[in-house]
Amino acid sequence: MHGVHVSLQQSTQSSRLTSDLVLRLRVEALYGEYAQTIDDDRLEDWPALFVESGKYQVTTRENHDKGLLLAMMYCDGRGMMNDRISALRLANIYEPQVYCHLISGVRVLECAADEISAQASFVVIRTMQEGQQTIFACGRTFDRIVEAEGRLVFKSRLVVLDSRQVDTLLVIPI
Amino acid sequence: MHGVHVSLQQSTQSSRLTSDLVLRLRVEALYGEYAQTIDDDRLEDWPALFVESGKYQVTTRENHDKGLLLAMMYCDGRGMMNDRISALRLANIYEPQVYCHLISGVRVLECAADEISAQASFVVIRTMQEGQQTIFACGRTFDRIVEAEGRLVFKSRLVVLDSRQVDTLLVIPI
Amino acid sequence: MHGVHVSLQQSTQSSRLTSDLVLRLRVEALYGEYAQTIDDDRLEDWPALFVESGKYQVTTRENHDKGLLLAMMYCDGRGMMNDRISALRLANIYEPQVYCHLISGVRVLECAADEISAQASFVVIRTMQEGQQTIFACGRTFDRIVEAEGRLVFKSRLVVLDSRQVDTLLVIPI
Repeated sequence: MHGVHVSLQQSTQSSRLTSDLVLRLRVEALYGEYAQTIDDDRLEDWPALFVESGKYQVTTRENHDKGLLLAMMYCDGRGMMNDRISALRLANIYEPQVYCHLISGVRVLECAADEISAQASFVVIRTMQEGQQTIFACGRTFDRIVEAEGRLVFKSRLVVLDSRQVDTLLVIPI
Repeated sequence: MHGVHVSLQQSTQSSRLTSDLVLRLRVEALYGEYAQTIDDDRLEDWPALFVESGKYQVTTRENHDKGLLLAMMYCDGRGMMNDRISALRLANIYEPQVYCHLISGVRVLECAADEISAQASFVVIRTMQEGQQTIFACGRTFDRIVEAEGRLVFKSRLVVLDSRQVDTLLVIPI
Repeated sequence: MHGVHVSLQQSTQSSRLTSDLVLRLRVEALYGEYAQTIDDDRLEDWPALFVESGKYQVTTRENHDKGLLLAMMYCDGRGMMNDRISALRLANIYEPQVYCHLISGVRVLECAADEISAQASFVVIRTMQEGQQTIFACGRTFDRIVEAEGRLVFKSRLVVLDSRQVDTLLVIPI
């Protein structure tokens, strides 16, 4: 009996570890898909990475550390996100540029019955048409993720920028 | 019987997940080894990361998006890769510099019987002898990977640069 | 019997793979925690990521490649680490700045009975108060990691910088 008991424990533990690993990989896959959607300039697909009522917010580290609720960008629901992209398309006709996201330090902090809390560090590199490459933004993302129709999507994403400003009036989603 | 059936399903699923995880880690290990080979300046070891008839190609995002087949660098087989490295060694005697690859967003897209399709984002930072550090290149790699003699190697690697140019005539492999 | 034998082998193999995966994730989690401790400016918590007698060393690639033991920074034990942080706090009162670590290419090289040998590539981006963002440092870390009281901590960390200098007299831990 003892042997069986141990074996069952191991099996349960191994099964929990496997599910932790799988969850982590799924979160990383969502981060990868998100980054690629933006880097591919498929911005119109960006709102679908959130739930219908999803929240997207960009703030600075300075404001975040002070507990200020000031946001540089705030979208409450996919509708506002769509509006944002439309505005961006209208504004950015003069200066072609591309972005490259690098994600690191992904941490799955909590996984309740129906919601995952995760965070990561990021840097976005911007390449101008003439070839100049600069660090566009870096910082951290704080995310709440849920499963909808079999895939992970953002319930909310808070982007905290290390810098107090970014080099455009209408920024791409980060 | 029902219990056994469920248990078997779980076991099969768990085993598939484990093999997915292992594959992903092996692909990441190959990417890591590739990056390190170049960052260590062991460029002569670079061709051995491909199959004998391996293809290596560097293009710009602009050309890639337009479907143009123009390549900034094209090597068809290890022989051309070796030639490339020899030329690089002859040319780059004046300006010592080192490179640092960061890889992110690794995605295993497809895994057929004998070939893996994968991609990733990258940034390469160049450090000049005097200490100046700049973004040398960033973009995405599209890879076909096969197993040969028990280890993963590239069948082909396509590097798509965000920039339309790089800051040297004879670039290192990316 | 043959079937059973194969099944046992698979089980053993699968269990080893799972433990490899778990170890890798734990090492990545330690790297993530380390980066975040510094990026959060919780420098006083930094020494506790090492064992009491832990060693921390920063050198340049140039010196490292030549086998020179010259270090830009060397701490032997938590006491020296605490002193380092105190000095840093005193010196850095004029120029507020924040750091963002990106880690890539994590490799678990060896796992003996009681010690893990691992390495990774990194880049640190520095953001000045006025918003200017630059590459502060990049290179590779070589680590010896042990388990103490149920969590992983550094026994030693060697940071090898690509650049021969960094842009401050008293640098943050990397």
